[in-house]
Amino acid sequence: MLGVCYYPEHWPEPWWAEDAAAMRDLGITYVRIGEFAWSRMEPASGTYEWGWLDRAIDVLGAAGLKVVLCTPTATPPQWLIDTYPGILPVDRNGRTRGFGSRRHYSTSSPDWLRETRRIVTLMAERYGAHPAVAGWQTDNEFGCHDTTVSYGPHDLAAFRDWLRRRYQTPEALNEAWGNVFWSMEASGFDSVPLPVGAVTETNPAARLDYQRFASAQMAAYNRLQVEIIRRHSPGRFVTHNFMAFFQAFDHFAVAEPLDFASWDSYPLGALEVSSLPETERLRWAETSHPDIPAFNHDLYRAVGRGRFWLMEHQPGPVNWAPWNPVPAAGVVRLWSWQCFAHGAEVLSYFRWRQAPFAQEQMHAGLHLPDRSRSPGGEEAAQVARELAALGPLPPMTQAPVAIVIDYEAAWIAQIQPQGRDFRYFDLVFQWYGALRRLGVDVDIVQSGAVLDGYRLIAVPTLPYVSDAALAALREADGFILFGPRTGSKTRDFEIPSSLPPGPVQELLPLRIRQVGSLRPGLTHAIIGEGVAGEAVRWREWLETELPAGLTFGDGTKALVGDGRQHYLAAWTDDGLLIEVMARLLGQAGLPVMRLPEGVRLQRRGRLTFAFNFSGEAWEAPCVETAHFRIGGRTVPPRGVSCWD
Amino acid sequence: MLGVCYYPEHWPEPWWAEDAAAMRDLGITYVRIGEFAWSRMEPASGTYEWGWLDRAIDVLGAAGLKVVLCTPTATPPQWLIDTYPGILPVDRNGRTRGFGSRRHYSTSSPDWLRETRRIVTLMAERYGAHPAVAGWQTDNEFGCHDTTVSYGPHDLAAFRDWLRRRYQTPEALNEAWGNVFWSMEASGFDSVPLPVGAVTETNPAARLDYQRFASAQMAAYNRLQVEIIRRHSPGRFVTHNFMAFFQAFDHFAVAEPLDFASWDSYPLGALEVSSLPETERLRWAETSHPDIPAFNHDLYRAVGRGRFWLMEHQPGPVNWAPWNPVPAAGVVRLWSWQCFAHGAEVLSYFRWRQAPFAQEQMHAGLHLPDRSRSPGGEEAAQVARELAALGPLPPMTQAPVAIVIDYEAAWIAQIQPQGRDFRYFDLVFQWYGALRRLGVDVDIVQSGAVLDGYRLIAVPTLPYVSDAALAALREADGFILFGPRTGSKTRDFEIPSSLPPGPVQELLPLRIRQVGSLRPGLTHAIIGEGVAGEAVRWREWLETELPAGLTFGDGTKALVGDGRQHYLAAWTDDGLLIEVMARLLGQAGLPVMRLPEGVRLQRRGRLTFAFNFSGEAWEAPCVETAHFRIGGRTVPPRGVSCWD
Amino acid sequence: MLGVCYYPEHWPEPWWAEDAAAMRDLGITYVRIGEFAWSRMEPASGTYEWGWLDRAIDVLGAAGLKVVLCTPTATPPQWLIDTYPGILPVDRNGRTRGFGSRRHYSTSSPDWLRETRRIVTLMAERYGAHPAVAGWQTDNEFGCHDTTVSYGPHDLAAFRDWLRRRYQTPEALNEAWGNVFWSMEASGFDSVPLPVGAVTETNPAARLDYQRFASAQMAAYNRLQVEIIRRHSPGRFVTHNFMAFFQAFDHFAVAEPLDFASWDSYPLGALEVSSLPETERLRWAETSHPDIPAFNHDLYRAVGRGRFWLMEHQPGPVNWAPWNPVPAAGVVRLWSWQCFAHGAEVLSYFRWRQAPFAQEQMHAGLHLPDRSRSPGGEEAAQVARELAALGPLPPMTQAPVAIVIDYEAAWIAQIQPQGRDFRYFDLVFQWYGALRRLGVDVDIVQSGAVLDGYRLIAVPTLPYVSDAALAALREADGFILFGPRTGSKTRDFEIPSSLPPGPVQELLPLRIRQVGSLRPGLTHAIIGEGVAGEAVRWREWLETELPAGLTFGDGTKALVGDGRQHYLAAWTDDGLLIEVMARLLGQAGLPVMRLPEGVRLQRRGRLTFAFNFSGEAWEAPCVETAHFRIGGRTVPPRGVSCWD
Repeated sequence: MLGVCYYPEHWPEPWWAEDAAAMRDLGITYVRIGEFAWSRMEPASGTYEWGWLDRAIDVLGAAGLKVVLCTPTATPPQWLIDTYPGILPVDRNGRTRGFGSRRHYSTSSPDWLRETRRIVTLMAERYGAHPAVAGWQTDNEFGCHDTTVSYGPHDLAAFRDWLRRRYQTPEALNEAWGNVFWSMEASGFDSVPLPVGAVTETNPAARLDYQRFASAQMAAYNRLQVEIIRRHSPGRFVTHNFMAFFQAFDHFAVAEPLDFASWDSYPLGALEVSSLPETERLRWAETSHPDIPAFNHDLYRAVGRGRFWLMEHQPGPVNWAPWNPVPAAGVVRLWSWQCFAHGAEVLSYFRWRQAPFAQEQMHAGLHLPDRSRSPGGEEAAQVARELAALGPLPPMTQAPVAIVIDYEAAWIAQIQPQGRDFRYFDLVFQWYGALRRLGVDVDIVQSGAVLDGYRLIAVPTLPYVSDAALAALREADGFILFGPRTGSKTRDFEIPSSLPPGPVQELLPLRIRQVGSLRPGLTHAIIGEGVAGEAVRWREWLETELPAGLTFGDGTKALVGDGRQHYLAAWTDDGLLIEVMARLLGQAGLPVMRLPEGVRLQRRGRLTFAFNFSGEAWEAPCVETAHFRIGGRTVPPRGVSCWD
Repeated sequence: MLGVCYYPEHWPEPWWAEDAAAMRDLGITYVRIGEFAWSRMEPASGTYEWGWLDRAIDVLGAAGLKVVLCTPTATPPQWLIDTYPGILPVDRNGRTRGFGSRRHYSTSSPDWLRETRRIVTLMAERYGAHPAVAGWQTDNEFGCHDTTVSYGPHDLAAFRDWLRRRYQTPEALNEAWGNVFWSMEASGFDSVPLPVGAVTETNPAARLDYQRFASAQMAAYNRLQVEIIRRHSPGRFVTHNFMAFFQAFDHFAVAEPLDFASWDSYPLGALEVSSLPETERLRWAETSHPDIPAFNHDLYRAVGRGRFWLMEHQPGPVNWAPWNPVPAAGVVRLWSWQCFAHGAEVLSYFRWRQAPFAQEQMHAGLHLPDRSRSPGGEEAAQVARELAALGPLPPMTQAPVAIVIDYEAAWIAQIQPQGRDFRYFDLVFQWYGALRRLGVDVDIVQSGAVLDGYRLIAVPTLPYVSDAALAALREADGFILFGPRTGSKTRDFEIPSSLPPGPVQELLPLRIRQVGSLRPGLTHAIIGEGVAGEAVRWREWLETELPAGLTFGDGTKALVGDGRQHYLAAWTDDGLLIEVMARLLGQAGLPVMRLPEGVRLQRRGRLTFAFNFSGEAWEAPCVETAHFRIGGRTVPPRGVSCWD
Repeated sequence: MLGVCYYPEHWPEPWWAEDAAAMRDLGITYVRIGEFAWSRMEPASGTYEWGWLDRAIDVLGAAGLKVVLCTPTATPPQWLIDTYPGILPVDRNGRTRGFGSRRHYSTSSPDWLRETRRIVTLMAERYGAHPAVAGWQTDNEFGCHDTTVSYGPHDLAAFRDWLRRRYQTPEALNEAWGNVFWSMEASGFDSVPLPVGAVTETNPAARLDYQRFASAQMAAYNRLQVEIIRRHSPGRFVTHNFMAFFQAFDHFAVAEPLDFASWDSYPLGALEVSSLPETERLRWAETSHPDIPAFNHDLYRAVGRGRFWLMEHQPGPVNWAPWNPVPAAGVVRLWSWQCFAHGAEVLSYFRWRQAPFAQEQMHAGLHLPDRSRSPGGEEAAQVARELAALGPLPPMTQAPVAIVIDYEAAWIAQIQPQGRDFRYFDLVFQWYGALRRLGVDVDIVQSGAVLDGYRLIAVPTLPYVSDAALAALREADGFILFGPRTGSKTRDFEIPSSLPPGPVQELLPLRIRQVGSLRPGLTHAIIGEGVAGEAVRWREWLETELPAGLTFGDGTKALVGDGRQHYLAAWTDDGLLIEVMARLLGQAGLPVMRLPEGVRLQRRGRLTFAFNFSGEAWEAPCVETAHFRIGGRTVPPRGVSCWD
């Protein structure tokens, strides 16, 4: 089903009913509203103006549209900040981040928590039972603009409380962090400093705990809102709109009280700000890289425990990336179908009409400021027609392959990359892409979750292997491939006393004696039967009796394993990784189809989708009897086909 | 005529008369003094030492030199700052910009305005009628070192007053800025924040108003000085020395009360800090790009309403660019003649003698610290001899081509580039260069000024088209070429409700439905009859019935127009732009001469000048009967010829 | 002899004796301890815990090891900073640099000086006469993490006192700095501002004085510690561990009260953070550039007045560079022998065992966290065996060639590079490398020291030539080659009134009329008899009657000289510089051997060492009768040979 983001407060009231009718005509079911409208709900402290919102919801409901109502906490109004300036977040340099845009709050501010409770309660009480309100979105894009973490006095106080609960005594904290190292020992919790602003780098264990704390604060803040809404709005769903590749908090923890996850897909913007090399950012500039949306769909399907929406979706050029090209013709439709193929329940475009004013005026909508339909709007209309023709989509089934991920792994790599380009999501994305180039569907699985039924389990890296994660891996019945740095840290950010891979030694008897990061251009050759490639970015020196599937040029082992479990002691080039995956998929009895760089397949139940992000047509090698629901055997450039 | 910048306070008094005599010998007429000497005029609060300055002016006057006296406000002395620290400007991070260099003041500080009035009045009273004082320069290089804008409490207070006058009510301000967008609505003018320091970008309308405010403050500050001087110094001119490509304030507004404009030309430094690509900065490293001085001459001729001086000119290597090469032999002379060819009344070299101490000790002068003449000084002496031989220069006549410019256009592009390399002056400079490569002279014209008599009017981009600008364009009798993003904003930084080009639709019926910025390497092919090229940086999607002169590779229109008015829907490569201009010049009945990249022509009255910035000689294709006043038909490398 | 850095406070006490025995087995003589252990010596104000340290020293001593005891002032503990927050340093933006890592103190804080005296006195009293304590290290890596200079109120007060002593009157200061330039004149010493935070660059003379002041504070701080130690620890040496290429203070001055210098060699990290071009950093990524360790050995041999230790040495990958590769097999041994060849008395590896916690957990040691020996540890053991086989090493003898260096030269170039890549140590390192590629040994000599006995004296650049420096050069009996910018500044950072090279004109009658910095790619051809090359980065225009050995493409002189003294008016490419040096060495009667880029020779007394940093074997062209003590005539890749 389709949805759209709408801002009644931006338009003359007479337009609302016309817009609602046009939404129906286009095929829209859900309309998200309200997330930035606090200053219109409460223009001054205690002065409420609910009338316009009452009428807006009524108008939309009257048109048969379902409303997704948002709490407006992403934009505390000016009078509130003037009254409680301590709400403002503080950056790592100690500078207050001021009013004038959005997300200007710290989740550790007691004033802010009280004000949040107040406004969310008022909204939930007023609209919780409104028949047009189908569900809720909490706040908007938690953490956006680097707002997960704040470094103000409220944050420090809350961090110290969090430490007190975690460690009980300063001695335990000093021991866990290894504070003896540079005489950093704290005499009490109230002496623990912020892990920023020191002469040189601060203790990585302290930084990891600060990130854990900030993530926990975010989860608590979301839960606070969810609980109020649930109290007053029975039978309605609650979700939150997350962002592509965002890693500053544990999305599994934040999403825990939600009914499902949502995420906001801006494929071109996400490409522009990605860490892909310039050549790749140029190559895919007008289509995005095929795996950028796909990976995030699979990720948020996991975060949503199988259920996810696209709450915002790019309908044309955006405004916030360094460069903002127009999507190539057909690509808005291509992306849209990719959402559904990966299991999206609802795809909601951002936004109904381009705002001609303020920060996002260069962000396209389904309509132009003159109320005419935009090129992206035309493609959305085509998607609506095709959706209607296709009928209800079948449910997703479990993929044959799992990639195990963990947000703490991202934080650990960020805190201690050891090589400047060792980025967690780069590695995960590379592994994901290698599997997708081989035509297999992939589920993302949270570290520690059961892995039953997966034929191949890929663990790109998992520095800290928790007891739960180890148990799940021990009990898995599929092949497992571990990547470098797995098991290289304890919960307290220490090197395991048995050396890496620490607890994984139970499954694979080996020790890592040395690790080296490799600057761009510095590579180590890797060879195996019929394959050759190289280590890039990272290489390890193994000591093990396990047999080697690949060896480094100097004769030491690069890929080792015995039976089902394997360890890859390097970050490799893309081609070699694809070969490694192909071999393992073959051993796991899974069929492999080598796809061109711009083509991807995805199954949803009985349906198979093919997406062609490239400029050349592609012949789908499907069975003669395939029944095409969209397109045909020849998938044109920027085209999509679907068959069963 | 020639001038020179001189600092009597830097040299032993016995040298003054010797220097003055040497100036006369070299051919100097004007001597600029005093702009940094406050601490010598008033060494302590209320303690004045005018004697040395009296004597310096007398000595110069006695030698027959004319003095350009400067107000010393660019360098408030330490005791003044210690007394009124609130004078200091504040940067965008809230950090006070301290004492210890120059330009350490905010034009919004009441203390500073009072102190300015005091010192300027004292100087004007004392020297206003001195027979040797020919004119005045206010302050020095307004805005240099990013000092147009300041973010301190005085600035905020003045900004709020400015807003109060502009908008009358907070409601009007909220409406104009679209503050509803992110609940940014201000409850009163005293709640409007600075448009910096927020969590993410602030409202572009607020930023544009802050720039307008800062520009207006600069204009008011200059006017304050001019009015005092006029009161006490009848019959003397007043000018100010502006800088190359500088855009932080509206130079037309600031120059309004001046008799003429001046600017400070440092061709090599300007090249080094320009946004030209590395390859170009390397190629022209020892000559500068031929259009860098030329464009600014034409610009400041416009700012000065037809009259301009070079108040400072590079005589050798400078000290302030990342690299500071020595100008190639002959180039100081080349630049000097280029100044006069473009209409300069006086060319004043900076400086008479290189200072062996302090910040600019590596900045060349006409003389070395040991009092001998520098290589640049030798070339200046040659210019003096040639000037004398040539006799009085004829006045400039109106060029056949106009380029319309607008400082607000620069601010709008800076605030909302939408593509990182969409820089206003890059585009204007590219259009200027295309015309100059075709041998035509160009006038720069302020947006809104009448355009009578121009055969071709180029509008590289004009996002906000004011009523006056529209009227002037409507009434123009020449061909007009509009560039991309013209008419894309209202006065309040909104997208016009009829879509861009907004009011220009009256002249050209078209709508822009989509715009895309193109990262380096991403291009869109453009073809036309006998020409081909590509869009770079920016491309638009037009909807219009107008006929197309060029089309994009996908068949949509790239250059449209009907009769005299044309719209170019892209930033194109240089070669294609030259072809577009050549075609329009031809249609306008103007002769075209395709010049090599390093050669330029310029007419001053009956005289034609040819400048050869390249390393190869060039044969001027002038008539057989040309009478050569400088050089000959063959213009040697780094040479100049002049004929009538 | 070998040493190792050890941290008993990091390990269980039962391990200490086992570790000590293993050290003896490996061949270790010296053990450095204590430099970061203040929080364990004094866990709370006035609460001392010396017991563990008593026992640690006893255990090491009982094993026959000699202890190098460090003062713990690099890491003031949290309770001390909480009590005296004014101890913390302040960065150039005015931000306090907080607690949480190390080196968080200002040497101008009276509280800090008192606390330093207290803790150093207590340690020196308690352990000064302990039989196992062989010597002392003051603090740790002075200046590391940019801590030489601080900009807080204590620093400003101390700077003003320093200025008061230096200049006596504000008038003298204003005159020396040329403060008239921009009305910067100070009315009194208490009005002199910090030379940072102004609107644009501050006075270079002020900046140079601030650097001199900061350097003097560092020297005084070291002296304060040394004097206390000497009082209580008779017969023990005192040293300090300096860092590669570090230039923020005058190492000769700081080392003056020490018995010898030490330095900490991390060849791969030093390469990574060097200013060598990317191609070089890639090429030598796993071996380091052969001259990086060598140059610093020769430098610190000079700083130590002939005596130096390696107090820390890289035994495997480090953790602090952007990328941290594993040294190629054999390279830890290669580096180790290079230390001894250049005269090191003791080589102490950092550290005995990799710490599994805190900031440096990814820094290799001789042992892994699981107590097994690391690959680097194996190579260290080989070095120990080879050292024992070789017997006592002969003393160093004076090299035939001297390079004159000066820390003020580094500061002057940093304050006023004039071309972005004019870096002092780049030039010195290039000159050093050219000589080393020709097979000659080099002594580094402090500017102003006597130069007797050197056959060739290279002065890469010496902007300020002091009276002492001039005298030493005047009296030298060897050939002298001066590089560009020599004699270009007075003591007060002014251009000499006779133009550069100022006082050197006494030796070489020439004047520099112009200087130009050359951006990358901009070169000026230089030719001579049988040689050709180019100026890069920097070129000067000489005026002189001296004969030219090389000329620029435009015919002006590039290398001039008459008899023994020569002046090179450019920064040249490497190849040309080698030819210039080869010619001068030949004239000086010194044999030249052209070595491959990866091979170096070094003599220590009767022994000649050959080091092969490259991937190809090298045949040493030594005499038939050479007696090989290590290796043989064929030096394998990453191998070392030694013969006499």
